[in-house]
Amino acid sequence: MRLRIDLAYDGTQFHGWARQADQRTVQGEVEAAIAKVLRLDSSDVCLTVAGRTDAGVHASGQVCHIDVDDDVLNRAIGHMHDVSGTQALFRRIRRIVPDDITIYSVEEAVHGFDARFSASDRVYVYRVADELAHADPRLRNMVLRIDDTLDVEAMNEAVSSTIGLHDFGSFALPNPGGTTIREVKFARWQRVPDMNLTPMNIYHGGADSLDTQAVGADPRTDESAYEIEFAESGLLTFTIIADAFARNMVRSLVGASIAVGRGKKTVQWFADKVAHPQREGLTGPAPACGLTLERVNYPEDGLLEERANAIRAVRSLD
Amino acid sequence: MRLRIDLAYDGTQFHGWARQADQRTVQGEVEAAIAKVLRLDSSDVCLTVAGRTDAGVHASGQVCHIDVDDDVLNRAIGHMHDVSGTQALFRRIRRIVPDDITIYSVEEAVHGFDARFSASDRVYVYRVADELAHADPRLRNMVLRIDDTLDVEAMNEAVSSTIGLHDFGSFALPNPGGTTIREVKFARWQRVPDMNLTPMNIYHGGADSLDTQAVGADPRTDESAYEIEFAESGLLTFTIIADAFARNMVRSLVGASIAVGRGKKTVQWFADKVAHPQREGLTGPAPACGLTLERVNYPEDGLLEERANAIRAVRSLD
Repeated sequence: MRLRIDLAYDGTQFHGWARQADQRTVQGEVEAAIAKVLRLDSSDVCLTVAGRTDAGVHASGQVCHIDVDDDVLNRAIGHMHDVSGTQALFRRIRRIVPDDITIYSVEEAVHGFDARFSASDRVYVYRVADELAHADPRLRNMVLRIDDTLDVEAMNEAVSSTIGLHDFGSFALPNPGGTTIREVKFARWQRVPDMNLTPMNIYHGGADSLDTQAVGADPRTDESAYEIEFAESGLLTFTIIADAFARNMVRSLVGASIAVGRGKKTVQWFADKVAHPQREGLTGPAPACGLTLERVNYPEDGLLEERANAIRAVRSLD
Repeated sequence: MRLRIDLAYDGTQFHGWARQADQRTVQGEVEAAIAKVLRLDSSDVCLTVAGRTDAGVHASGQVCHIDVDDDVLNRAIGHMHDVSGTQALFRRIRRIVPDDITIYSVEEAVHGFDARFSASDRVYVYRVADELAHADPRLRNMVLRIDDTLDVEAMNEAVSSTIGLHDFGSFALPNPGGTTIREVKFARWQRVPDMNLTPMNIYHGGADSLDTQAVGADPRTDESAYEIEFAESGLLTFTIIADAFARNMVRSLVGASIAVGRGKKTVQWFADKVAHPQREGLTGPAPACGLTLERVNYPEDGLLEERANAIRAVRSLD
């Protein structure tokens, strides 16, 4: 049986998704949890993931799959009652994984589903606290702080050249045996709007309240004085959606956009890099902390297998 | 000259606001930064704060003040040009403080301003990820995770009894020489609405795109498939606003609400604790990580001094 696992993680303390000997990785932790519950050797558990994130990159909507025999899966049930092996596995592994990983669901995958090859697109968001944003220290693990004002209009002019089908060789690590051709569906720098976390309806005290007597009438009748905003309000975000991403592609596009936003590079320089793929003059990738894989989309159930076969055919392992 | 300092911090790695020998505290770090810039001994720098947060509690809108002689303040200018001592101090200390503190502004305080005694109210928010919320691991330092569903209606029935002027002795550490009487203006558990981080307008590819040719028509025309929500969407929040708070008061109210929400205590038990202040049978305070001091409000400039004098008179040092 093939299981689809939806999960999220804070990438700060991981050496990325992919399992590596002697390194703390997301794949390593999740596989170890599954192996423990199913009484398997870790080397017999192998996850296939939608987006292999690099060291320090986060995911709020990652998807992976695993193939497991029914009789092995049922080992998860143990003394539980009225649950399937799949549900039992979910309930157990979500409590075993470390607290920088959250398992959202484990479900039987529909026919033809492949977490990696069936995916129709991936959505990444890079968050920046520039001079105009309040750099909330509670979010410092997921936001890049820049003590500078950026020319957002120029940055958007630059990234508009990425829309459509291009070879992103100028913005990606080399991919031996594969291509760096990808189709970008959306790429835009935007200011997060100021939004209220919760609605309010303030009690202003009775005429006889001690406070009012002691201090004089409270001048605050303006309820906006009590509004609490989402912590992400005011941040600058780069959202990019593509069928898939070449290695380092999002962070390199962000690094190059920021160079434009600071006036160190021109929009034309950026557009030329898109038009003429080359590795020379690569702008360094932006730091990993600002990047999150937000979601992975799949086509309708009936098209999953067709999609996976087509993608396997056109794209080498990358 | 009196300076008003607005700041924020992630409380996770601090032993609270208040300076303590041999402990990492917010006050200690900010005072050390100011002392360094003004070439003073740390013991000659003393901040007065609006809300003295406990160990592990965060602040996104903390306010404090400091009194400093003009000639000392001007030491901050050094080789800077065209800046006041106040602006120079701001620019320097914001770069010196550790990255779990953000200094938002340093400004000359208006006449009569006292960060602590002029404040008209404080706003705290406690964040919980219950079974209905997605526990985003990126926010785990600022959200309490509860693997349980809570009866939010019962919790709100309970906390409605706190509105108005009450002695919160059942929910506070003893306050020798002072009272635990406070006026609550708002207290409510609410589900954070699902809000889009940024608007989108997706490019679906041309008829001749490689992707379309290879894989068949992309079935995704529904743009909701690309929406990214604020990371706090779906969380359960407790917002409470009062003129001031007794020690441990918010976390004790949260702990008692959660006991009601889990069905372990009744609404009547909660209301009785509000009606009859007593220390017996205290419900433990909820963990510090979920709590943030969100903002501090002050009356109009002309009323600052009056307010401060009145509050000093009615409330002992607490």
